[in-house]
Amino acid sequence: MILDSKNYESFYKKEIGQIDKYLNNLLKGRKPESLYEPCSYILNGGGKRLRPFLVLLSAKAVGGKLKDVYNAAAAVEILHNFTLVHDDIMDNSDKRRGRATLHKKYDLSTAILAGDNLIALAYHSLLKDCKKNIKALVAIFTQAIIEVCEGQSMDKDFETRQTVPIDEYKVMIFKKTAALTEMCCSVGALLGGANKKELKAAANYGKFLGMAFQIQDDLLDITAQEKTLGKTVGSDLIEGKKTYLFLKGLEKSSGKEKAELIKVVKQKGIDKSEINKYRELYIKLGVLKDAEREIMKYTKLAFKNLSFLPNEEGRNLMHWLANILISRDK
Amino acid sequence: MILDSKNYESFYKKEIGQIDKYLNNLLKGRKPESLYEPCSYILNGGGKRLRPFLVLLSAKAVGGKLKDVYNAAAAVEILHNFTLVHDDIMDNSDKRRGRATLHKKYDLSTAILAGDNLIALAYHSLLKDCKKNIKALVAIFTQAIIEVCEGQSMDKDFETRQTVPIDEYKVMIFKKTAALTEMCCSVGALLGGANKKELKAAANYGKFLGMAFQIQDDLLDITAQEKTLGKTVGSDLIEGKKTYLFLKGLEKSSGKEKAELIKVVKQKGIDKSEINKYRELYIKLGVLKDAEREIMKYTKLAFKNLSFLPNEEGRNLMHWLANILISRDK
Repeated sequence: MILDSKNYESFYKKEIGQIDKYLNNLLKGRKPESLYEPCSYILNGGGKRLRPFLVLLSAKAVGGKLKDVYNAAAAVEILHNFTLVHDDIMDNSDKRRGRATLHKKYDLSTAILAGDNLIALAYHSLLKDCKKNIKALVAIFTQAIIEVCEGQSMDKDFETRQTVPIDEYKVMIFKKTAALTEMCCSVGALLGGANKKELKAAANYGKFLGMAFQIQDDLLDITAQEKTLGKTVGSDLIEGKKTYLFLKGLEKSSGKEKAELIKVVKQKGIDKSEINKYRELYIKLGVLKDAEREIMKYTKLAFKNLSFLPNEEGRNLMHWLANILISRDK
Repeated sequence: MILDSKNYESFYKKEIGQIDKYLNNLLKGRKPESLYEPCSYILNGGGKRLRPFLVLLSAKAVGGKLKDVYNAAAAVEILHNFTLVHDDIMDNSDKRRGRATLHKKYDLSTAILAGDNLIALAYHSLLKDCKKNIKALVAIFTQAIIEVCEGQSMDKDFETRQTVPIDEYKVMIFKKTAALTEMCCSVGALLGGANKKELKAAANYGKFLGMAFQIQDDLLDITAQEKTLGKTVGSDLIEGKKTYLFLKGLEKSSGKEKAELIKVVKQKGIDKSEINKYRELYIKLGVLKDAEREIMKYTKLAFKNLSFLPNEEGRNLMHWLANILISRDK
């Protein structure tokens, strides 16, 4: 069956359901409860399941079978959830997807341990689908974890710096976000039987999609509707985070406007009442448009790589997914 | 060259030096510093390097070459250090090997992140030595991490329970300690080219050695000299930890003596001034002797498995190591 665009959404939903089944099966009957209940809690917390879906699509796009990669897809979702659990501790976040974060629901030790265990469970699940190229698969998976840790560390470093060049910011979001989406596509493609050229193309698609996704995230923080976003609009500014918008603003501004932005750093964030003022400043400086241009640039680069993938249906789904992501409102 | 017993110590020291080199090389030039300096800090903190040494000896004992397993040996030491970093957070420990623990020297976020990164670096290092049996090697490595997390979780659960059956305590120390030493020997043996029988024997040696090691640890806490031990003698009692000695004491005691022990749980530990009283109680109940018997039992089981390993020098070194460990005073 060739899917038409109307069916992409239902295909996505069906496959996400499959991945959820694999996630549940992986934890079933495991003990002690004090460890696995928290692991279930975070894995059952919903989310877009974007990363496992990338594994499926990449396998499909190189002519592989979905049934051969569900465990690997579950693995990348587990890994992603590990990063959420530990990041939430570091960011001292209370809420995630509308529920208490793991360390708030349980305690710090439980959250650290659950996160650690999720890393190992991720490898465990990945291995189930590994039949050949095992060394390459495990190496790619491992490298992504290293990049994520390095990216998180860079992000923390940025907090105490007055400014950060955009290029360095891009290295950080590559490591923190795009390295993982790149890995998802590499793993899917490798398991799906990709040749070298196809593997590189799938990896690039994942990488560029991740870059676009992260800058879109920065943009949505200021342009989204509060109700849709599910969290305070402008929270990056409130927390004084060095986003693409902020750093681009610093780069383009001077005089009084630059001083306004530097104040955000010096005061370690702004008051909620000032968000509109800063939104206006962003608009005046043109950084919202700059962000949109960057997102389009990376999305086009992602699209370009799709032409090297042999399976049309897979390609179309990957095209659809990228479009969905750049037009999302949360 | 066949080593005689006098040379075992210098062989050990030389090989530990090699492992340290591999550890240092692995981190050299990596960035960001905010991540890798803490990783170096913990890895350069000394320690017995028991686990990597087990990898070397197991490879040797099945006829493998040491040069083929140094990366894997470094990997298990890195993994062990990850557990130390995260455990120290959970136990709220200030000191480790006479220095500040990682979360005290840096901060909580840095310690969590460094620990996470160490897991990935461990896989990275392991893979360097993987030429065949890669799936089995990664699976064994992964399973050990899962066991360690489960063991740590059980140990935390024990804190809030009045008592724990000795059998359950043994499951916990198997997971928390012996699963890792078992894995070290399995990895070494597999990389060294072991057949099935040899692999099982090496694994068993590691497992039983780990069990003996952990009970010995519990015993030393009350029998060692403070100066040699490097920490307060009786600190397990002070913290109200459910050690082998304590649980065996609970099992064997009744009336007033049992009440004294239950007090330790109810009050979540004892005062330093009461240590002598409890040491006397342990002696009266015979639990120090019981612990010694358990240690001997597991050590003998470890020895028994050595007979299945083909290389005499390797076997002798493993015999020597087990003897050193049971006669250690810290």
